[in-house]
Amino acid sequence: MALLDTIHSPADLKQLDRSDLPRLASEIRAKIIDVTSRNGGHLASSLGAVELTLAIHYVFDTPRDRLIWDVGHQSYAHKLVTGRSQAFDTLRKPGGISGFPRITESIYDAFSTGHSSTSISAGLGMAHGKKLSGDAHKIVAVIGDGSMTAGLAYEALNHAGDSRGNLLVILNDNDMSISPNVGALSSFLSRTFSAKYLQDLRAEFGRFLKSLPKIGDDVYQLAKRTEESFKAFTTPGMLFEAFNFDYFGPINGHRLDHLIDILENIKTLDEPVLLHVTTRKGMGYPPAEKNPTLFHGIAPFDIRTGIKHPSPPSAPAYTDIFGQTICHMAEENPALLAITAAMPEGTGLSAFAKQYKDRFFDVGIAEQHAVTFAAGLATEGYRPVVAIYSTFLQRAYDQIIHDVCLDGHPVLFAIDRAGFVGDDGPTHHGLFDMAFLRPIPNLVIMAPRNEAQLVAMLKTGIGHNGPCAIRYPRGAGTGAAVNWETEPLKIGKGEVLRNGRDLTLLALGRPVQEALSAADILAEEGIDAAVVDARFLKPLDQDLLREIGSSQKPVITLEEGVAAGGFGSSVLEFFAEEGLICPLKRVGIPDRFMAHGHPDELRKACGLDAHSIVQVARNLLKKAAA
Amino acid sequence: MALLDTIHSPADLKQLDRSDLPRLASEIRAKIIDVTSRNGGHLASSLGAVELTLAIHYVFDTPRDRLIWDVGHQSYAHKLVTGRSQAFDTLRKPGGISGFPRITESIYDAFSTGHSSTSISAGLGMAHGKKLSGDAHKIVAVIGDGSMTAGLAYEALNHAGDSRGNLLVILNDNDMSISPNVGALSSFLSRTFSAKYLQDLRAEFGRFLKSLPKIGDDVYQLAKRTEESFKAFTTPGMLFEAFNFDYFGPINGHRLDHLIDILENIKTLDEPVLLHVTTRKGMGYPPAEKNPTLFHGIAPFDIRTGIKHPSPPSAPAYTDIFGQTICHMAEENPALLAITAAMPEGTGLSAFAKQYKDRFFDVGIAEQHAVTFAAGLATEGYRPVVAIYSTFLQRAYDQIIHDVCLDGHPVLFAIDRAGFVGDDGPTHHGLFDMAFLRPIPNLVIMAPRNEAQLVAMLKTGIGHNGPCAIRYPRGAGTGAAVNWETEPLKIGKGEVLRNGRDLTLLALGRPVQEALSAADILAEEGIDAAVVDARFLKPLDQDLLREIGSSQKPVITLEEGVAAGGFGSSVLEFFAEEGLICPLKRVGIPDRFMAHGHPDELRKACGLDAHSIVQVARNLLKKAAA
Repeated sequence: MALLDTIHSPADLKQLDRSDLPRLASEIRAKIIDVTSRNGGHLASSLGAVELTLAIHYVFDTPRDRLIWDVGHQSYAHKLVTGRSQAFDTLRKPGGISGFPRITESIYDAFSTGHSSTSISAGLGMAHGKKLSGDAHKIVAVIGDGSMTAGLAYEALNHAGDSRGNLLVILNDNDMSISPNVGALSSFLSRTFSAKYLQDLRAEFGRFLKSLPKIGDDVYQLAKRTEESFKAFTTPGMLFEAFNFDYFGPINGHRLDHLIDILENIKTLDEPVLLHVTTRKGMGYPPAEKNPTLFHGIAPFDIRTGIKHPSPPSAPAYTDIFGQTICHMAEENPALLAITAAMPEGTGLSAFAKQYKDRFFDVGIAEQHAVTFAAGLATEGYRPVVAIYSTFLQRAYDQIIHDVCLDGHPVLFAIDRAGFVGDDGPTHHGLFDMAFLRPIPNLVIMAPRNEAQLVAMLKTGIGHNGPCAIRYPRGAGTGAAVNWETEPLKIGKGEVLRNGRDLTLLALGRPVQEALSAADILAEEGIDAAVVDARFLKPLDQDLLREIGSSQKPVITLEEGVAAGGFGSSVLEFFAEEGLICPLKRVGIPDRFMAHGHPDELRKACGLDAHSIVQVARNLLKKAAA
Repeated sequence: MALLDTIHSPADLKQLDRSDLPRLASEIRAKIIDVTSRNGGHLASSLGAVELTLAIHYVFDTPRDRLIWDVGHQSYAHKLVTGRSQAFDTLRKPGGISGFPRITESIYDAFSTGHSSTSISAGLGMAHGKKLSGDAHKIVAVIGDGSMTAGLAYEALNHAGDSRGNLLVILNDNDMSISPNVGALSSFLSRTFSAKYLQDLRAEFGRFLKSLPKIGDDVYQLAKRTEESFKAFTTPGMLFEAFNFDYFGPINGHRLDHLIDILENIKTLDEPVLLHVTTRKGMGYPPAEKNPTLFHGIAPFDIRTGIKHPSPPSAPAYTDIFGQTICHMAEENPALLAITAAMPEGTGLSAFAKQYKDRFFDVGIAEQHAVTFAAGLATEGYRPVVAIYSTFLQRAYDQIIHDVCLDGHPVLFAIDRAGFVGDDGPTHHGLFDMAFLRPIPNLVIMAPRNEAQLVAMLKTGIGHNGPCAIRYPRGAGTGAAVNWETEPLKIGKGEVLRNGRDLTLLALGRPVQEALSAADILAEEGIDAAVVDARFLKPLDQDLLREIGSSQKPVITLEEGVAAGGFGSSVLEFFAEEGLICPLKRVGIPDRFMAHGHPDELRKACGLDAHSIVQVARNLLKKAAA
């Protein structure tokens, strides 16, 4: 019988002899590989954290001791040993368990994660809460070295070191975020020294300190701290010591015995502690060890070969078209630069990064800095393109307003993964961007209905002497023929794709396709629907809207973003401003967080598929006739 | 003749003999004290940076060399020596010069600032821009130690050290943000050592290193770095060395000779350099030296005594009522905690901080961390109140969505300075919060019409088991009698303050007062206007709105926030959803950044005063009758 089948909670894990744990680790790896090979998922990170997971649950008293997984990509082993090994087959399936820790899913998930670098902040909050309650249980936050590049982690370290929160931070150092890591901190962490010489040097140094004349407490304290500093320096702990953390490590994160011993030792410390653990992303599955970036978040694959199952042929993804267009435009425009926040592959910038090494900047998981850095580049006459997923752009909201739009710097925001992203669920859907960007003065906002229009919009954005944002969806385009010579759009001009006398389907971005299909279906019923592609969320095409509104025919607005304050809302605002009165139904994302699931299913749930639109149109016409 | 009168640009400054600079510094101080004593302004920071300003302009080739003032509170001397000494009398006056650096105001203002910690990011962008252009001019970013607590600064340091941007960061260390500094970094910076012993120790250490057997390059490199580390440790530069910055200092920032010498020396370095300068906030004006927090941003005062001019008696400020209410509630509710991001005085939490030391957290200029930290506290059963100005809450947008609202943690956001703030201008007005918060599921959003209602809303928020936001304005309340025993509101219930058969003034927050005045004026003209206080932006009072919309009488919505996507927009959405058709005019902030000026004037400019509302009402009724 498999050991894993006997583990229903960490209590069962604690019954095992230490010598059994490696076998359990193997079984867990096999299970993770098996399920992700079928469901897809975050394989490489989770494989890297198997021993660490077992050691933590073996030593600590979860869930009373709180365990927080930063980002959560590495939490599969944790799910398997906390009562979810049966359910694990449903990983990322609709209605199945989430790919991330979720408070609502298990009492062992102390904090819901998804975005990076929240764990120290949340953990410190818990630590202070427990302190106030007189509860001696521990908080363990596991954070990757990639997540350490985000300012949020630094803010939390700074507060933790000062307020002496009782918190164990485990730095899971695999020298990777999703891609290889960048940043001064990263090179600092990976400096290695020869152990033998280090020991000798340290001994020498100790003797040197002892030889100093003892002239009062001052020098003694100094000498003591110097020794500590030396220790911290010769290990990579200098930085954390500066933050008043007690630093331990680095230790090998795949040696269970060492992990358990050190955790046993440090769990009694009542102060901020940082344990530095080095792990290997993809550990135990050779294809993932070899290519951890590819196996970071992977679609279903063949276990034997590590090759992704051939997916049905599809049109190129928006991401790819973005990457290609940027390369094309950069050729003609030496002012064009590209910036990513630790996502060169995800945002389609790999080719640009190779071709235009000097004009490409990966700033690490640092969206705030990415945006203000871009503003700085713009003041020098450059045209920076900041490519960030919609959901992560939420992190740079103030910088967009304060550093870019207030002075109208020509920064182009390429907002990928706008709309539903599918498997990653509520933390990753890109549904708020239209609503939060629209109120910002000076910003032009566009959304393409297909990949051909994305090219035109990128040209429009780069040609515009002010800030622009283009939001486009995850996944395959429509197959529309792409023409690199396409002309830029006229700013604020929509496009009538189909005339119709009974009602207007007024859509922005991806839903335009659904509107066209809906119009076809309606036509079969003898309903003549106009289809208009707004193209611009801001500025709106006022002439076109005036025409539509004046006809007094029903209007249905369609957008893949929150309906509150979004595109439809802006149309309502314009109609009200103009005193235009016509029945208007907004279709967008309702006022609740949307779970993970197939994007098409999620769209359907929100009425954003052709058939739902047809239904809305019928109802609206019926009401208008009544 | 005053020296300052001969300085029309930094070129004139460079003509002076070094020995004349102290006299110029005195004149500048006198001018700054004189103008701020009449106009108010950021006195203490600017007085602390006079010598630093002169030294930078004396040594560097501004504006070709770019100079960025982080936050900008310290930029008055800079304004005075860059052609604005005549205009300086108009500081913060309507149409006068801004209290912050503004690109649009002078070519010497290389980057507009206002919010903290942007300077390294923007400067690094400029540095990389210049590198690409083959331009050898320098970038100088001056950042306070307070601003160093923000994650954005860390993200930028991390990228700068890695990408080797040619950037001089001057750390202006006065051990203060607006209030005394917090955070591990701060205590780290202020560790002091006796200079003599340090020198001896360093010499000993050098001899020790030389005595080591030379066994290959490895040890040599290690020894070299160890020496550097030692140097860095014995100065407070360890942290910056970890980021690959060359660290110099700390040096006294009021000794012009030293400043000029060191700047001359390091300006030729082509790599990231950090110069650590210690200054005194308020330097040269004893009352400000004595109480730098009071003189951080000060209203007009008597120069001789340093005492603020008595202001006409007014009602207590919203901020004060907030602070008092929190103390009252904390007495009964041991779960109530309060968090500020470096603004204990500004947010009215000083009394709470004293009375409930253990339940108060100042996390530094770290809004992101403040919010996620609060979420962590909430998971332990506490009720954290996060008090942040509206404009700074923009920094924590993702954390509000991802860490608080997604799981519905009961965190209460006390959003001060919502609406116009006046003198500080476009970077500080709190106009976006309603639009960016409204789309977030699970969040209850309120705005009080007076200080009595603020008390009720705070009780409502603490009593609600989920996330809440309360936005309230800067400055004096209405004088409404405050009753600590007041009952919480029913969530989502508005209040009809006045019935009227001709039209409805539907207002939220402060504008309710203007609506009441407008209704009085309208009544004299025989127009019968209803006045409704919505109280909740979310959830809306659907029953009440249905009633209002069904009457088909004109509606005017009033809000002190951006009209795009705000309260009026939410009413439009509801009416459209319900198929209610009535003329609706939204009055709010139009789609442009609003300059500095008196809040009442700014309100007038946006139609938010009683007389403008009356005008809108007349027009609307005329149109409806036509």
